[in-house]
Amino acid sequence: MFEGDKLLRVPGPTPVPDRVALAAARPMLWHRSPEFVELFKRVEARLKALFETKGDVLIIAGSGTAAMESAVANLTSPGEEVIVLSGGKFGERWLEIAQAFGAKPVELKYPYGRGIEPDALDECLAKHKDAKVVYATQNESSTAVLNDIEALAKVARAHDALLVVDAVSSLGGTPLPMDAWGVDVVVTGSQKCLMLPPGLAFVGIGERAWEKAKAARGHRYYLDWKQYQKAAKNAESPYTSAVSLMYALDESLAMMEAEGAEARFARHRLMREMVREGLRALGFTLYVEDRWASPTLTAATGGGVDPEALRKAVRKKTGVTFAGGQGELKGQIFRIGHMGAATPLDMVTTIAAVEMGLAELGASVTFGRGAGRALEVWKSWQSRCW
Amino acid sequence: MFEGDKLLRVPGPTPVPDRVALAAARPMLWHRSPEFVELFKRVEARLKALFETKGDVLIIAGSGTAAMESAVANLTSPGEEVIVLSGGKFGERWLEIAQAFGAKPVELKYPYGRGIEPDALDECLAKHKDAKVVYATQNESSTAVLNDIEALAKVARAHDALLVVDAVSSLGGTPLPMDAWGVDVVVTGSQKCLMLPPGLAFVGIGERAWEKAKAARGHRYYLDWKQYQKAAKNAESPYTSAVSLMYALDESLAMMEAEGAEARFARHRLMREMVREGLRALGFTLYVEDRWASPTLTAATGGGVDPEALRKAVRKKTGVTFAGGQGELKGQIFRIGHMGAATPLDMVTTIAAVEMGLAELGASVTFGRGAGRALEVWKSWQSRCW
Repeated sequence: MFEGDKLLRVPGPTPVPDRVALAAARPMLWHRSPEFVELFKRVEARLKALFETKGDVLIIAGSGTAAMESAVANLTSPGEEVIVLSGGKFGERWLEIAQAFGAKPVELKYPYGRGIEPDALDECLAKHKDAKVVYATQNESSTAVLNDIEALAKVARAHDALLVVDAVSSLGGTPLPMDAWGVDVVVTGSQKCLMLPPGLAFVGIGERAWEKAKAARGHRYYLDWKQYQKAAKNAESPYTSAVSLMYALDESLAMMEAEGAEARFARHRLMREMVREGLRALGFTLYVEDRWASPTLTAATGGGVDPEALRKAVRKKTGVTFAGGQGELKGQIFRIGHMGAATPLDMVTTIAAVEMGLAELGASVTFGRGAGRALEVWKSWQSRCW
Repeated sequence: MFEGDKLLRVPGPTPVPDRVALAAARPMLWHRSPEFVELFKRVEARLKALFETKGDVLIIAGSGTAAMESAVANLTSPGEEVIVLSGGKFGERWLEIAQAFGAKPVELKYPYGRGIEPDALDECLAKHKDAKVVYATQNESSTAVLNDIEALAKVARAHDALLVVDAVSSLGGTPLPMDAWGVDVVVTGSQKCLMLPPGLAFVGIGERAWEKAKAARGHRYYLDWKQYQKAAKNAESPYTSAVSLMYALDESLAMMEAEGAEARFARHRLMREMVREGLRALGFTLYVEDRWASPTLTAATGGGVDPEALRKAVRKKTGVTFAGGQGELKGQIFRIGHMGAATPLDMVTTIAAVEMGLAELGASVTFGRGAGRALEVWKSWQSRCW
């Protein structure tokens, strides 16, 4: 009955706009043809603008995890000490990848539901002077926490360490000016704020990272950055490019440019406030305090209902899909994605769907209380857009 | 002016049928939703039928090279001796991957334009008794050679070695019954005989390979087979599935089933004969003798023209795209792809395009001589189909 898509409120994949989806259906191109060269060059220039970098942005056919792995395989050698900031499933993924590639990760843990304090990184780097790479997560989508990458980058640089940032569920939805903040590597995926189907991953790489990569002996072939850099000089991919997704990417980047970065970031902040305030008005407890609240997804609990029962009731009655908790948060929270091709109006229906779910579960709910609060937030929003 | 696609006669990407391309544009699904579980199960069952195996077939978001790498990282340990059959660019790729992962590959070379003699593998395995994995290429698309995998599998098994086969440009277009032939690992990609856009890769894995993988210490995370096997038990991908390409895959596998394997193989053989005979009639020299001739692409030279000049003239005048030679064959041959969504009628236009290219270059050509010969082959074709 429900075809998902516009009703998809998970932290990725996000809804794909029709013009993006249909762009992917264009006739196939040979990845060595002049037409592909043009497409590649245009997309590459747009990606550099999105990453706000003069460095390279590599395009990999694969998921965001492939891009993460590349940042371990290309920057470390077996036995090398590295620092991993870990406060959720995706921080833990950095840890697992580092272990799988034989590095010796020092795990700097921060509590679920909070971000990492930059001072903690400072202390850790002072203690582990051999560690020259720090792996961080901008948006920990398992807990809905946004970390302060600007501050972390300053600390890393003060210790002459590289900062590698997983921005899979945030790039495009919140600021991450790579060069201005001094971030050395940024990885992201196609199916979040970029409004594409899953299947492409991107790696922004600065000069210091290229320098470190020279000596790194981590095993890599498909994910060898140098091959991508070399091929990009001829506007090619070293292995067959995911052509249909490249068409789609060209279209989605054009849409993102047309909206503009500032307006896009403001839209994501507004959606966050509408969802948070709407949920609060319905008696839910937000899992993350305001200081660390993610602009791309919100995690909540309480409201007098079981999070899993609520998710099921909402989906059955309205077709709107939320995500549950992952790992040790399974059954403890529900997560609402609000990134990419989503609008403030969508947040009103999202909160309305929560109200309907509550009613389905027999909980006491005044229809319109949460949705109304979301509208109030929208009305009061001080921004040139929306 | 030309939109490629139906005129794409390269060894991949191949034309994508409209119904496959449009399937990929369907509304996005959450990769953890019940609807995706159904899609995953259906696709997985169809893939096992295509691979003719009762073993696992893993679906990876990435290019065929990612699947190749997985067969090195999951089966070997650094320092381990392995055998690589190498007679073109893709055999050489096995060698490069093995080296990148610290294995010690023994390169068993065979000449460009010919297949490997099974006896040569027998001798090599007798000499290198520690080597327990053989990396082979079914269809060496840089030279248009089809190797005899059935014979190679027998030899490998006699020496208790695993046979890993790159079937990227052949699976679906020529027989490779994995279990019946005793092939341990088969890798392929989406953009060849499977008629999909690039971006998915597949790995068929038999029991002996799983056993060997247990002790292998090659570094892997994104390409760790065990994670895919584990996730597949819940009809999931360990990392975000390339959902739109999964829709497309479901559609293309349905089309392939409807045609039937025997008819599909016969169609590819017929297209090979039409192209080869058509080119011969026009005075070209086929790069590969009949014994080793690939059913999915044909390489040729001669005809009194420069291969690169011919490719350019054909493309400019007719829109039909051929590939050139790769590596040391650059400028020496041209290659015509005839796999996936291509028909005998397309081969008539393909040869007609060659005739037009010859005329454009001022070469002497009797229009219809090559195309007519292709039609004669078709007319005489003894097959229940076409």
